[in-house]
Amino acid sequence: MMPESVLIIGTGLLGTSVALTLREADVQVWLHDTNPQALAVAASMGAGTIGLPEEDPDLVVVAVPPMVTGDVIAEWQQRYTTSTFTDVASVKSVPLDDVEVQGGDLTRYVGGHPMAGREYAGPHGARADLFVDRVWVVTPLDGQDLNRVGLVRSIAENAGAVPLMAPPEVHDRAVALTSHVPQVVASLMAAQLVPADPLEVTVSGQGLRDVTRIAASDPELWTEILTANAEQVLVVLDALSDDLDTMREALRPCVGDEDLHPDDHPVVTELLRKGQEGRARVPDKHGGREEPQYAVVGVQIDDRPGELGRLFAACGTADVNIEDVRIDHALGRLVAVVELFVRPESYEPLGSALAASGWTLRA
Amino acid sequence: MMPESVLIIGTGLLGTSVALTLREADVQVWLHDTNPQALAVAASMGAGTIGLPEEDPDLVVVAVPPMVTGDVIAEWQQRYTTSTFTDVASVKSVPLDDVEVQGGDLTRYVGGHPMAGREYAGPHGARADLFVDRVWVVTPLDGQDLNRVGLVRSIAENAGAVPLMAPPEVHDRAVALTSHVPQVVASLMAAQLVPADPLEVTVSGQGLRDVTRIAASDPELWTEILTANAEQVLVVLDALSDDLDTMREALRPCVGDEDLHPDDHPVVTELLRKGQEGRARVPDKHGGREEPQYAVVGVQIDDRPGELGRLFAACGTADVNIEDVRIDHALGRLVAVVELFVRPESYEPLGSALAASGWTLRA
Repeated sequence: MMPESVLIIGTGLLGTSVALTLREADVQVWLHDTNPQALAVAASMGAGTIGLPEEDPDLVVVAVPPMVTGDVIAEWQQRYTTSTFTDVASVKSVPLDDVEVQGGDLTRYVGGHPMAGREYAGPHGARADLFVDRVWVVTPLDGQDLNRVGLVRSIAENAGAVPLMAPPEVHDRAVALTSHVPQVVASLMAAQLVPADPLEVTVSGQGLRDVTRIAASDPELWTEILTANAEQVLVVLDALSDDLDTMREALRPCVGDEDLHPDDHPVVTELLRKGQEGRARVPDKHGGREEPQYAVVGVQIDDRPGELGRLFAACGTADVNIEDVRIDHALGRLVAVVELFVRPESYEPLGSALAASGWTLRA
Repeated sequence: MMPESVLIIGTGLLGTSVALTLREADVQVWLHDTNPQALAVAASMGAGTIGLPEEDPDLVVVAVPPMVTGDVIAEWQQRYTTSTFTDVASVKSVPLDDVEVQGGDLTRYVGGHPMAGREYAGPHGARADLFVDRVWVVTPLDGQDLNRVGLVRSIAENAGAVPLMAPPEVHDRAVALTSHVPQVVASLMAAQLVPADPLEVTVSGQGLRDVTRIAASDPELWTEILTANAEQVLVVLDALSDDLDTMREALRPCVGDEDLHPDDHPVVTELLRKGQEGRARVPDKHGGREEPQYAVVGVQIDDRPGELGRLFAACGTADVNIEDVRIDHALGRLVAVVELFVRPESYEPLGSALAASGWTLRA
């Protein structure tokens, strides 16, 4: 099912990385970009040949920003009248509507969204292994030619990605729920810290750090993503807003009431419980549906080269597999606490082995 | 400034841990709890002597749930008429109001909140090092006797904690902002996942995992915390709700409009930018104000015992200090990618050294 010839339009990070995966499979790759510099860099990395094929390529990969993706597809479909087209945009309904509005041929456009990297970065960071083990959503339309769909699926598989077939609107709802709204939530939470006085943020812990981590993301890039997927983002934000109103109304009567008992707040508890239930649906790092219940062994180490090596060598000697690890640098001191996540049955053997070889265990 | 005799009322995780830190300093410690089993466990751990002192102890530490803390303080102040009282509750205005309403003596109550552990867990998990390097907020009232304040401060320092002096209402505002509202935000975000279909959550990434991690917390415990601090929580939730309304109104016109340009959305960008600014105020793991800019070296390992040991031994040989580490288990495969966070100047030397000794580097 692999294409024999591919034209890449847009040699940024994603376009060039796709080109590199195709070149590794000996596919003939043509490169095109309105920016001659990006094009030269991509070609110098061995991503393909600069220029446009005379004959229709099997596949055209359009790797340009989401807001112009549909227009570019419709335009190039006029030149290559038999080729299959795909794209890499992080939203799928907007390009689809644009292709239709511009009079493009929807039967030859099979949308794609490799979930790695960013639309904007240049070709310098491109690499053939960018998509390994990443989800690559392919969004065929009802009744679309299976050969055209297969072409797109095959380049995802060739890149080492995990292809996931979904209708465009399901894709857009899924990324709204799992990526775009979490970004809004993290940003709005972090925004509340702006007027805080320094003493107030001093008491921050790991919870706040985790909730606000992605608030550091690029505001311009995310403005484009959120506005392009506004319809699905608003469905989730509206539901979230309803729940927030419910929470606020439930908390309102507690102000100044000293005698309320926690059992008097079933609405608050129910919302928190719904959150616990939703959290259990987030796939863990192993791709499973449940968070595994690991035991945590805390070990104090000096914050200097070689300490982690000594520690993990000791873990290896104890024949215990470390499932995850977190380093918590102590408040302004030159020691750190390493949290070793292990299967429950390994907790006692590992703790004993480390204590016996002189490590300081910590809560 | 250390007390010579202390009565602990409530031998749960926090009360028993405080007792253990005092016993290590040879303070005379009396233990009291309405639950005889918890009391016996605490005593068997060497936390102190079961019973009530005949004479007024220097300090009484009340370590019971927040909603009853003030009542318990007022009650015991009638028996010990000269002792200083402190507590460990995670909110400070409610106990204060309760002491006043119950006719207690506010001049002898200096509030405390060691930011470690939980009010509810039993004495089994108690340990003398629970508070090491943790913030322990002490909330004196205006004009309070400095000797009484000093007693409370000294037990925090003795426990290895970092005492932070703040008025009770500043404490409550700070924990609302940095702990209680992040919990609400994480829970409400996670709650939106409940009705999702399985395909939709399959595309979840690290961002969603981080934002919703604390949504797994105990709903009953958090109902008590949120309702006890409802006034300050609502101040932040109301502001957050206003920003959420602003975001929704700004996104509304984008639905179905194919021709809007990102620059047409200054309100969306501005809210995201405010989030970026707030995020920069969150102290990092080193207690500093800025996230350090680390470089990340990705290394592929097999998911089995000893691999991390071999890897970190190689890092030690390269004389590079690993600042942080994250293990990303690949989608359903028996390999994992270890992300090593290092200072930028160590990026190239570490990458070269690992590649030279046969490790597979990954994007």
